[in-house]
This record gives sequence, C-alpha cells and structure tokens, in this order.
Amino acid sequence: MSRDPAALVARAVIGDRAAIAKLISVVERGGPSAFEAAAALHPHTGRAYTVGLTGAPGAGKSSLTDALITRIRRGGTEVGVLAVDPTSPFSGGAILGDRVRMQDHATDEGVYIRSMATRGHLGGLALATPQAIRVLDAAGKPWVIVETVGVGQVEVEIAGAADTTVVVVNPGWGDGVQANKAGLMEIADLFVVNKADRDGVAETVRDLELMLDLSGHPAWRPPVLTTVATRGEGIDELWAAVGEHRAFQEGDGSLARRRRERTREELHAIVLARLEAQADAACRGDRFEAAVAQVAARELDPYTAAEELLGAR
Amino acid sequence: MSRDPAALVARAVIGDRAAIAKLISVVERGGPSAFEAAAALHPHTGRAYTVGLTGAPGAGKSSLTDALITRIRRGGTEVGVLAVDPTSPFSGGAILGDRVRMQDHATDEGVYIRSMATRGHLGGLALATPQAIRVLDAAGKPWVIVETVGVGQVEVEIAGAADTTVVVVNPGWGDGVQANKAGLMEIADLFVVNKADRDGVAETVRDLELMLDLSGHPAWRPPVLTTVATRGEGIDELWAAVGEHRAFQEGDGSLARRRRERTREELHAIVLARLEAQADAACRGDRFEAAVAQVAARELDPYTAAEELLGAR
Repeated sequence: MSRDPAALVARAVIGDRAAIAKLISVVERGGPSAFEAAAALHPHTGRAYTVGLTGAPGAGKSSLTDALITRIRRGGTEVGVLAVDPTSPFSGGAILGDRVRMQDHATDEGVYIRSMATRGHLGGLALATPQAIRVLDAAGKPWVIVETVGVGQVEVEIAGAADTTVVVVNPGWGDGVQANKAGLMEIADLFVVNKADRDGVAETVRDLELMLDLSGHPAWRPPVLTTVATRGEGIDELWAAVGEHRAFQEGDGSLARRRRERTREELHAIVLARLEAQADAACRGDRFEAAVAQVAARELDPYTAAEELLGAR
Repeated sequence: MSRDPAALVARAVIGDRAAIAKLISVVERGGPSAFEAAAALHPHTGRAYTVGLTGAPGAGKSSLTDALITRIRRGGTEVGVLAVDPTSPFSGGAILGDRVRMQDHATDEGVYIRSMATRGHLGGLALATPQAIRVLDAAGKPWVIVETVGVGQVEVEIAGAADTTVVVVNPGWGDGVQANKAGLMEIADLFVVNKADRDGVAETVRDLELMLDLSGHPAWRPPVLTTVATRGEGIDELWAAVGEHRAFQEGDGSLARRRRERTREELHAIVLARLEAQADAACRGDRFEAAVAQVAARELDPYTAAEELLGAR
C-alpha cells in the first residue's frame, strides 16, 4: 500500500482499516508526513462526536469502554476507540492485545480500536491525539471514544479535549488525597462511580455531589452515575447521559464554542511545537558553534548572538 | 540616576553600588533593556570565578556563604553574592534583610550581596542569573558566589552553572530517600557535610565516598569535606579545596570547556525563550482569531494555519 498520506486518506475515507492504521501511525510519528496527512484529512472531518474517558489506573476505564462499545453497536452505528498511554513507549495495539474487549469486538468491522503511546518527540501525544481522532472521523466513525491511561496532567488534558468528558472513579474515591482531583473536577461533564457493587458507593456519590455543590457549575451540572461495567449495569443510563449532554451542548451553542476553544489551543500548541523545532535546528551545526565561539571570545553577547542565529533562519 | 543600560554599565564598571543594583534589576526583569544591558556588559566580563552553593533547606548554605565571604575578604579580594530563590516573588535584598551576614558585611564596600527571585516570565531566573553574574563580573568582583535556596531542578541547574559547584549536606543525608540526590551527585565538584558537630558525620562521609566510588568520576573526584559553618570550622579547608578545583580545571583546560558548554546551553535557552515569546505573539489578535475561524470552518487544516501564522510574522 502507498505510504503517500493523501492516498491513505482517500482509502481511509471509504473505511479501509489498513489505511486507517497507517494514517494513525503517520500522525503519531509527526513530521512532514503528519502535516500532509492533516491537510488531506481536514476537509473530511467535523462529523464525529468524541467522548473522553479518564480516571485512576484500575478504576475500570477499559471495561467501561468495552461496555460502551457494545451499547453503541446495539444502536447500529460504528465507533472508533483510541486508548492513549503517555507513559508507554508501545503503540499500535500492543498494550491492548491481551484485553478482553479485543476478543469481543475483533471480528466486528464496525469497531476500530487503537492504542497510542509516546513516540519520541515531547508533547507529541497531545498533538497527535486530535489528529488521530480526525482519522477516525474522516473514516466515518460517528462516535470516537478517547480513553486515557493514567491521571497525570497530560492524560487529563487529552481526555478533557473531548466533546463529553467522563471521569471514572470508584467507591472510596473521596477518602484519600488525590493529587489531580481538582484537575478531574474541572474537566468532568459526567461522573461515573464504577464498581458500584462495592461498599461505600452512597458516600462517594454524596461526596461528589457536595464537591459539585461547592464548585458551582453555571449551566450544566455533571450528573453522578453508578455502574458495574463488567456486568453491564448502568451502561444504558451512562449512554443516555452522554446523549443528554450532547443535546444540551448542541442546544445552547456551547458545543461549537467548546470546539472553537479546542481549535484555539491546538493551534497554539502546533505553533509552539514548530518554533521549538526551529530553536533546536538553530542550535546545531557550524553556525551555532561559531556563535558560541564568538560569545566565549567576548566578541558577541549571548542575546545578540541569539538574534543573529534566529535572523539567519 | 539614568536608567539607560549602557550608562548604568559605565557606572557599574567603576564599582558604583547603586548602578550594580539597578542593572541586576534590569536583567531580572528581562525584555529589551536586559538585552541592551547584556550587550553593554559583555566586553567587561570573563574575569570572575563563580562558586555555586546548593543543598536542602536548612543545610546551612547561608552560614557557609557567610563564612566564605569572611574567608575571601581575609585574602583582600572582593566578592559578590547572589542568593537565588526560584520560589519567592521577592527580590532585591528583601529575603536577606534579616540575615546575620547582612549585618556582618553591610559596611564592607568589598562585599556585594543581592537576592534574586522569580519576576514573572517563566524560566526567567535561569536566564537572568548568568546575566546577574556578568553584572558582578563587570563590576570587578573576582569571586561570585551563587547560593540557591531549595533543591528543585531549577535550583540545581542554576547552582550547577558555576565554575565550581559545592553541594551542602548534613549528617544523616544518606538515610532518607532524597528526590534529587542523583541530580546533586551529578553537579557536585565538592561535597560539604555541614553541621559536622552532629552525630553521624562519619557515616555520611562514608556513604558519599561510596556513592562517588560507584559513580566513577573520570578526572576530578569530588572531595568530601566537613564544616561547622557557624563556628568557622573547616572553612579554610573548603576554600583551599575550591582553589584546588580551580587550579585543576585551569590546568587541564576543562574550565574553558565547561564555560563553553555553559555558553552553548545559555544560547539555546535564549533562542528558545525568544521563539516562545514569538509563539505567544502569533497566537493573539485578529489574525489568530481569523485562523481559528478558518480551521473551525474546515477551510484550513491546523498545521497549514500554524504555518501561515508563523509566515506572517
């Protein structure tokens, strides 16, 4: 198969799974090909609705994603899933290979599951994830679930860059000091207390409601739902709540505003990444070494030297 | 007094304390005036030898600095001191105002002590400190001590950007898990076990020597010294060790290489800071909002939009 991004996009748009896989690898790697792919993809995008899923390791995000896939497929529509792990160097399905849901949905052509991981360049995943979503969007998936593994700042940012963000907790979540609790409160459109067959569900729901009382959501107050994902309990209610949040946002124009804000942030991140690449390029090679020598010899001060290096780009 | 950087430099070079103070404020603030100051300062620099002092809060860095000042002044030479606190918003002497050494050396014209703190822009102190050192260098201080308050990455980087770096620990240092132990091991040219009148000195010295055995310093092995700074014990030996390290580095050419490497890093940091400022500037105003609107309307992909924003600079 051709590795030309435009040709890949043409095949991905008609649902070619191999082309989708190659394109996601291209955007994951970054660089000029990713740039080309972005340009070719963009006209085909804008139809998918994204749902972000985040929470502490072990909260049951994968089981919940799995149950959501089953629920979405019951409605007859297709779904794409990105499992993003900023701490793993592996991608392309490796980390998901042994998961139950791969077996459940492996033969279903209407489901596309893909894991993404850090591949080299700093901040790469935060830039690559929106592009990978666009690949699935262009491939005609009306729903894209973005599940992030971990609760660091990057994970929360990635999951928070969805149309609806679901924060998954477990009974007892309110007990310990959670480093990123505030960050999670900020991005949540829906709370799910998963593993609701365990003790302490009522307390955790009450704690969350109390926190929501205190934080004062102006227009949309995140509902707090309970699920037992492994048994499929509460999944219909969760899916209905996602639908309600979508309808709310489409109704008051906040979906368009939210997407606009995301575009703004993405554009800033791309500009910054390109300039950082320029800084690295400016600080290599003979010209840079000559500037260092001039500064060391007191012929040039470092600020003027930096100007000259940048002017010579 | 004129605020023109070149005029301030002309006065600082002849030792004018008010001009020195104003110049350090200028480089601390950053911006075009700092740029001008750097250009005017540079030809007057390159004579000072810098000693970095770092270690955990409470290790006794200030007492040690104080004792070193006394020792240096006994030799008849002048000394400048920068106390850098990346976590404090105060500078200009405020945080040092109540310290003992201010009273000890306040009337000594041969000593210039100045505290520096974060003033707004990110990464500002890491850029401003080398410039503040240049101010003291240009003002004719043959020795400049840079004491950093705290043990975070920034503090270690700042203290490590000296000609000789002294890492200050206390008896018992080997016991706990210290987040930044590896970082400190990496930058140390000399270890000082201060408060050596306490229990556990021998064990701490032995632990440090063992760590040094394992890390295998190729040419210069950092000596491990003991001091009781508040009583002036071990200070002559510490000062002699600084002199030995200096002579060693001057002898084998490593001082010039080390300074060259620092210039290289400084130049890269300045280039990056200038490009980040450009990124912020590119992502503001009507042109940026127009680009966001075009991306949102699918008329333009975000990568091409970023290119256009950068091309329009």
